[in-house]
Amino acid sequence: MESKLIFSNNVADELAHIVDEIKPSDVFVHVDTNTDKFVMPILEATCDIVSKATKIVSAAGDTNKTVDALTKIWQGLGNGGATRKALLINVGGGVVTDMGGFAAATYKRGIKFVNIPTTILGAVDASVGGKTGVNFDGLKNQIGVFALPYATIISTIFFATLTNHEMLSGYGEVVKHAMLKDEKAFNEVLKYDPTLPPRTPEDLLNLLRDSVLVKQSIVEQDLCESGLRKVLNLGHTVGHAFESFAMNDRRIPLAHGFAVAQGLVVESVLSNMIFGFDSTVLHRLAEFVRKTYAPFDITCDDYPRLLEYMHHDKKNQTSTDICFTLLAAIGDPRYDIVAPEKEICAALDIYRDLMGL
Amino acid sequence: MESKLIFSNNVADELAHIVDEIKPSDVFVHVDTNTDKFVMPILEATCDIVSKATKIVSAAGDTNKTVDALTKIWQGLGNGGATRKALLINVGGGVVTDMGGFAAATYKRGIKFVNIPTTILGAVDASVGGKTGVNFDGLKNQIGVFALPYATIISTIFFATLTNHEMLSGYGEVVKHAMLKDEKAFNEVLKYDPTLPPRTPEDLLNLLRDSVLVKQSIVEQDLCESGLRKVLNLGHTVGHAFESFAMNDRRIPLAHGFAVAQGLVVESVLSNMIFGFDSTVLHRLAEFVRKTYAPFDITCDDYPRLLEYMHHDKKNQTSTDICFTLLAAIGDPRYDIVAPEKEICAALDIYRDLMGL
Repeated sequence: MESKLIFSNNVADELAHIVDEIKPSDVFVHVDTNTDKFVMPILEATCDIVSKATKIVSAAGDTNKTVDALTKIWQGLGNGGATRKALLINVGGGVVTDMGGFAAATYKRGIKFVNIPTTILGAVDASVGGKTGVNFDGLKNQIGVFALPYATIISTIFFATLTNHEMLSGYGEVVKHAMLKDEKAFNEVLKYDPTLPPRTPEDLLNLLRDSVLVKQSIVEQDLCESGLRKVLNLGHTVGHAFESFAMNDRRIPLAHGFAVAQGLVVESVLSNMIFGFDSTVLHRLAEFVRKTYAPFDITCDDYPRLLEYMHHDKKNQTSTDICFTLLAAIGDPRYDIVAPEKEICAALDIYRDLMGL
Repeated sequence: MESKLIFSNNVADELAHIVDEIKPSDVFVHVDTNTDKFVMPILEATCDIVSKATKIVSAAGDTNKTVDALTKIWQGLGNGGATRKALLINVGGGVVTDMGGFAAATYKRGIKFVNIPTTILGAVDASVGGKTGVNFDGLKNQIGVFALPYATIISTIFFATLTNHEMLSGYGEVVKHAMLKDEKAFNEVLKYDPTLPPRTPEDLLNLLRDSVLVKQSIVEQDLCESGLRKVLNLGHTVGHAFESFAMNDRRIPLAHGFAVAQGLVVESVLSNMIFGFDSTVLHRLAEFVRKTYAPFDITCDDYPRLLEYMHHDKKNQTSTDICFTLLAAIGDPRYDIVAPEKEICAALDIYRDLMGL
């Protein structure tokens, strides 16, 4: 199945073109309370298709990425009389596109959907690769399917209003993609200061294009994560554990990209222990993450709980092993690597040292 | 994606063979309260794989084919520590395999599942074709995905205890498959008296094999119902409306096969009106359905509500048209046929005449 990836700052034209191709029976727009407030006015002013569509609004935030919220989207489609030929346009960050994509993929066994990411994280991560779903029982993306959007429109017109925090959260995945690619890309991203505004919108669109294309080329080779695609989980075994721990145990959500940035450090330590990943590179990364992101404040008392979350990770192949994607070097990832709990704890110790905790 | 269709009365051996091929991290069995009581004792006595598996029990009946029940299956998998390599074995009728299949297809974005139908309806309909899902907002199978089981094991060892009612419910789909195939198959099924026990278990297994293979050959050509597969909806536009009407408005569920049997009559009337479908065949079918199944007691006051349900049918391509699969003749189906409400009401009038209502 093909999925179009469109980089453009003329969203109205692109949408008109898509609707012309699909000829949907009716059009729905799914937003969250944030994008409804900040993005919809921009879109509605310029885009007939959006202003005439039936709107479905979800509550914003990862804590609202639930089966209940999913049910409300299904209800919105049903109440609006959506047929199998309806089109759902998701306008928002990863929560909106993941949850809206899952709702579309399961409504009447699947209707077409288009994603318009409005955050950097949404653009470089959630928008590509067909992972849809919701959190369940305290676990991230526990329920979902692989379903590709008909198209993804990546535009920087919505990014002008992004806060530093949102910018940084997206940047976590940009760093990951660079580490999967090559030394040149890695050096580039460590040079870039995501807390400063980009020089031009084109500058930002180029940065995103480079990053998205890393992911796109990997996903195309392996949609259902039977092999190669697992390299994209770099930083995520630990990152997701940090995220779940923050949400459930601390009740203070940790933004996904922040969690991934920390996860990249911990998993680079593990990579060093298991594959001799270059310690100079590890120290450069740790320094960048420490300065750019706040360290995630954990003590060794938190390890058992963190290991528990890692045990629930979807990547594990058995219920006893914890699986990682690690790096032998920048651009040389290895997947399905089992690390014993003892080594994971040692890596967390070193992470805390590197972060000055 | 391949899905094995196994006709065998040695379920234990077949399951052992499958587990040997898949090598799952852990095995779960999903049953409902009925199959837990009547089928599990038979299976557990002969089959190690089943007796050692973690059991998940759903409440029996189509009224329990809900998002809530689905959530409980997800919870059962999570609590049992199911990884992505886990296997779910669904043992039951269509509700168990539809809902369990959907749970498996969406748990951690998809684990493998095996279906073991324990009803005739489950064997000839739900077990083949990859339609999974749950009812939602009073509409049948409104939420779901297309997902193929790794294998379906069709066995008659569970059918000895079936009631006449269950036998008849399954037989509705057997009649439909025969009408899609040819005159010979149609004459055969009208000869067979589903209220009498079959002569031998092999006799029954042969009847099921013929019927299932009609469906299998259609589904193989069109998994996602973009075209040909729609012929399998024969009898279902009206059948589903009768089913929803019985469940929501009368609060007395109408078994699926009973609804399909009535739907076949109404849609054969429409076929006669639109395509000149042979009226002698129509009368033979109506006579068979009237004698074998009780007529579904409706008056013209119920038409608006029935039309409303037909408008919500997943097969519709726009929110205003009602789509049907009709027959130009036995073995010659036509799909995506829009019938105006006036003709549908006229067909319901004739149905009531034919049924002596």
